[in-house]
Amino acid sequence: MSEPRAIVLVSGGLDSATTLAVARQRGFVCHALSFDYGQRHRVELEAADRVSRALGAVEHRTFPIDLSSFGGSALTDTRVAVPETGVDPTTIPVTYVPARNTVFLALALAWAEVLEAQDLFIGVNAVDYSGYPDCRPEFIAAFQRLANLATRAGVEGHALTVHAPLISLTKAEIIRLGRELDVDFAMTISCYQPDPTGAACGVCDSCRLRREGFREAGVTDPTRYR
Amino acid sequence: MSEPRAIVLVSGGLDSATTLAVARQRGFVCHALSFDYGQRHRVELEAADRVSRALGAVEHRTFPIDLSSFGGSALTDTRVAVPETGVDPTTIPVTYVPARNTVFLALALAWAEVLEAQDLFIGVNAVDYSGYPDCRPEFIAAFQRLANLATRAGVEGHALTVHAPLISLTKAEIIRLGRELDVDFAMTISCYQPDPTGAACGVCDSCRLRREGFREAGVTDPTRYR
Repeated sequence: MSEPRAIVLVSGGLDSATTLAVARQRGFVCHALSFDYGQRHRVELEAADRVSRALGAVEHRTFPIDLSSFGGSALTDTRVAVPETGVDPTTIPVTYVPARNTVFLALALAWAEVLEAQDLFIGVNAVDYSGYPDCRPEFIAAFQRLANLATRAGVEGHALTVHAPLISLTKAEIIRLGRELDVDFAMTISCYQPDPTGAACGVCDSCRLRREGFREAGVTDPTRYR
Repeated sequence: MSEPRAIVLVSGGLDSATTLAVARQRGFVCHALSFDYGQRHRVELEAADRVSRALGAVEHRTFPIDLSSFGGSALTDTRVAVPETGVDPTTIPVTYVPARNTVFLALALAWAEVLEAQDLFIGVNAVDYSGYPDCRPEFIAAFQRLANLATRAGVEGHALTVHAPLISLTKAEIIRLGRELDVDFAMTISCYQPDPTGAACGVCDSCRLRREGFREAGVTDPTRYR
């Protein structure tokens, strides 16, 4: 039997790069999927392409979807400022993009159905995260349930699985796992507002979590800060 | 208190027009949403715009999303022929677009979140339908559950509801309901392969179901056949 196919969501960040490495290690032929969704930080799409090739995806597609036309997030609406003063764990931050992971997984599901892939991988994380509702284990479980009702797979009995291998890891644990799997973190971009060369701001929520993760993991941080 | 807002998926067909009329009758301020998803039958987008205005939606948006880039359906892939020999109830037909309703509802959810709407309406139907897995009541229930886990609404406790008011009606019952609500069916297009003027083929699955529905309802069929 040939190797099974998987769709892997790749954003260009550290988490999704590690997720792709996990999917490859588990023996999947990986089709990497990114979204050009009107995000401010477009250099992450270039990072997604580098990461996909370096980690052995058989193909990488960038799907255009203009979520910025709905507005409502600092990541897609240039009138909303990216916060630089740290994470408030009691609220959903303005960097949350409405229903983003639901939309991304729905499109991954469409592609999976065409490719007859039964596995989706997403690098969400419920520990060192920014308080987004669509990064929680119950969200992933509900999407998997939906996927099996929504598609030929569900009707014809080939179960679809949504893998979120990082969901219960700390950022430091993700970094250690990625290093074991030879992920080159220098290729990845996590910053919410990198400059056009890809250099990170060092002060947004995502930079803070990443920097702290490297420190805690005892791994040298290869991030290029501006 | 002001009237609550709803997002209503409007395709230009008979079912979604009736669904919009139901949402208006229930007192919702309706934001109509259509998708330009690479479908063959683009005149349906013009029908969606006419229907939305005629039935009192406060706005109508057509969101571009190129599902044809994934391929896999007669409705988006011009290399696959539209069947003209009737519905085979034992299989999923080639006109099924992979994960279409999952993608459409996910995008409706994103817009609902930005508008702070707590209600989504979709005109799916599980009786006189073409055997699509994403038209079943269990699919709608699973999406509603997902929506409440995926969003601010779920976290902050404002429950989202996915309404599928036609789901258990026959085509004839939908036609009678639409007539009671003054839907002008002549505005709607159901055909999978209309000509550029909007005239229907009369032989695809969708035309057969529609024609049979008018006959059974005892309502004169205003469809313009070519």
